Amino acid sequence: MNNIFSWLPENTDEEVFEDIVKGKHVRIERIVSHGHSSPRTGWYDQTENEWVMVLSGSGLLSFENGDEVLLEKGDHLNIPAHAKHRVAWTAPDEPTIWIGVFYS
Amino acid sequence: MNNIFSWLPENTDEEVFEDIVKGKHVRIERIVSHGHSSPRTGWYDQTENEWVMVLSGSGLLSFENGDEVLLEKGDHLNIPAHAKHRVAWTAPDEPTIWIGVFYS
Repeated sequence: MNNIFSWLPENTDEEVFEDIVKGKHVRIERIVSHGHSSPRTGWYDQTENEWVMVLSGSGLLSFENGDEVLLEKGDHLNIPAHAKHRVAWTAPDEPTIWIGVFYS
Repeated sequence: MNNIFSWLPENTDEEVFEDIVKGKHVRIERIVSHGHSSPRTGWYDQTENEWVMVLSGSGLLSFENGDEVLLEKGDHLNIPAHAKHRVAWTAPDEPTIWIGVFYS
């Protein structure tokens, strides 16, 4: 057993991605952001679908089609494969903890 | 976008299971318990693996091999397929909200 709020990375210079589950058709990641936006240039253009939820902090997702979605604690969203998006903003004053479930 | 803490079921007589994502190889469920234990008799004996996390409240998982795991806010656990288990107890005084990711 682990706790999603525990063992937060000490180095907050970079966004940190950790695998929690790695299966044949699914990958569950914890992502911890500290005011980061990502990717630095361009968009995420993923071959897998991603279900994402924010557990603490907040983050703003921007989509290539112009949509913007602010996710706060407990907010979750399904991002279909190839829906180009980026993390435009995350809370600067606290860690933003995300769970991402990537699936085909 | 939805919030995992919103739209809690009004009827708390039964444990409530809702699909959030239903893919070919993955299913994400929200489960809301109010002092329930389940299944009523016997064990869950699942053909899929399940990654489970408690988001509020608390729940005690019992395994056929004698292991007991108390999950509180943020605690998460991977349950391999066919690891027989049951929910032996959940908090009686508040909703216990679980996320279950079932995957093959």
